[in-house]
Amino acid sequence: MESLKEVQKQIYFYIKEIADEKSLELLKLLPNGKMLRSKLILKIAGINEASIKLCAVVEMIHAASLLHDDVIDDATTRRGQKTINALFDNKTSIMFGDILYSKAFTELTLMDKEVAYTISNAVTLLSVGELLDVELSKTFNTSYDRYLDMIYKKTASLIEASAKSAAILCGKNKDNFALYGKNLGLAFQMVDDILDITEESSKLGKPAMLDFVEGKVTIPYLLTYKSLAADEQIKLHSMYKKELSNEETIWLKEKFQTTNSIQESINLAQRFGREAIEAIQDENNLDLVVIMQAMIERDF
Amino acid sequence: MESLKEVQKQIYFYIKEIADEKSLELLKLLPNGKMLRSKLILKIAGINEASIKLCAVVEMIHAASLLHDDVIDDATTRRGQKTINALFDNKTSIMFGDILYSKAFTELTLMDKEVAYTISNAVTLLSVGELLDVELSKTFNTSYDRYLDMIYKKTASLIEASAKSAAILCGKNKDNFALYGKNLGLAFQMVDDILDITEESSKLGKPAMLDFVEGKVTIPYLLTYKSLAADEQIKLHSMYKKELSNEETIWLKEKFQTTNSIQESINLAQRFGREAIEAIQDENNLDLVVIMQAMIERDF
Repeated sequence: MESLKEVQKQIYFYIKEIADEKSLELLKLLPNGKMLRSKLILKIAGINEASIKLCAVVEMIHAASLLHDDVIDDATTRRGQKTINALFDNKTSIMFGDILYSKAFTELTLMDKEVAYTISNAVTLLSVGELLDVELSKTFNTSYDRYLDMIYKKTASLIEASAKSAAILCGKNKDNFALYGKNLGLAFQMVDDILDITEESSKLGKPAMLDFVEGKVTIPYLLTYKSLAADEQIKLHSMYKKELSNEETIWLKEKFQTTNSIQESINLAQRFGREAIEAIQDENNLDLVVIMQAMIERDF
Repeated sequence: MESLKEVQKQIYFYIKEIADEKSLELLKLLPNGKMLRSKLILKIAGINEASIKLCAVVEMIHAASLLHDDVIDDATTRRGQKTINALFDNKTSIMFGDILYSKAFTELTLMDKEVAYTISNAVTLLSVGELLDVELSKTFNTSYDRYLDMIYKKTASLIEASAKSAAILCGKNKDNFALYGKNLGLAFQMVDDILDITEESSKLGKPAMLDFVEGKVTIPYLLTYKSLAADEQIKLHSMYKKELSNEETIWLKEKFQTTNSIQESINLAQRFGREAIEAIQDENNLDLVVIMQAMIERDF
């Protein structure tokens, strides 16, 4: 997509503006990613100077959050590429994240006031979501509500804010697009949680079934736990935060099947997906339906 | 000062607003500090809702930068108190820093647009300054210009932006106050660099003469190095980034004396201090002269 290149040029221009060589060097080492948030903004607001700048700001914020995430999670690879903390050290990842965040916020203050508020408020939610994620990963969480609140803040809030801000830029119904973005974000995270289990390491670009080892009781685990008998719940609990043996992995995968939890998780993600589409049904924007479908109709 | 309590209340209110218990718990563990930036803002803009909110935002940004600093510098104490990374872990310090930053930026978007830009741009400079500080600490830096550029970005930029923003809020001459803040900030950092050498560990709340061990060639070291003969320069260089023996410490302190570098560093800080006062000589604000003097006429 030609316009995504424009977004990357804008990011490069912003970083060049701060006149620090090391920052430009680090920018080149960031993986490009799918730029989902930019695609969304451009499909809603069209391609123009304001929308390209908004995309650049949102991508910089997203990249900053991943830089800090990788330090917090001790991650050494992302999308099959070495992370900045692996290539350099934690310091560099923290500092470059701060540079991307603050430059993005600086540019936001030059934009529409409601857009600036909407995006920065989402970053506050995102930062709280990160903290909640770490807190929830300390003990085996069995609450769906706490899981949903966390993934809303950590993942959906910035997607919600991106869609809402794009609608503000072009004078469309901001509430409908916000709801679309929120549900899209929730579905997106659930799909991510499912792929951690169903996809192979080589495709994930990181070890498979890593979430549970890291203490993350994601939606398939939550649904499995609820369906198990008491003694099996204890067994699942005993496997929490551990490197699993082959035998344990086989038992776990069998339980995913017999409890139908993977399929139920997919159904749930698809329900959020449908709700996203319903929120914008009056907007006649087929592209947004396609974005949604591409995301939820995947090879699980 | 009663009004500083108002600032603390405002910070508490902002954090309460994000409805996350852990964040409130962490806020209580932050050391209060001298609140220099708030004192400055209140002396310029007076005490009113807008100035108290600006103070709260600036203090949250300052606290966030210290939280990330402590991770970057592996610091376990600050002002004699245990740091968040020492009490919990690096993760918590990074995440709580991100929460303070993003909430501060969110509140900024509700303020005067020029104030919002001025403060966020200073945070970009501050973040770049942090990176420059780490880069400069990798090899023995002998450039005064690079040192000055780094302390301007890392320390003076936020003080400059605070004074400028306060002037904007109350319709005073923003350029004069910006220049006051910038020079005050440079003097402030130089005083800090001098105290690292002249003050005892118990008063500093951290080990004395830590800067050089950490690779920071601050102004007294820069001036000493320039005044030494070639063979003594080599000796000073050999002591860089090392825990010094008693003998070495005695040699170093003697060189500070014979080269007059401590006194010259004090003179330089005082020159910036005078330039700060000159910048606002038409403003008839004696309080700001007092703030400046209290800072540079210290017990070295």
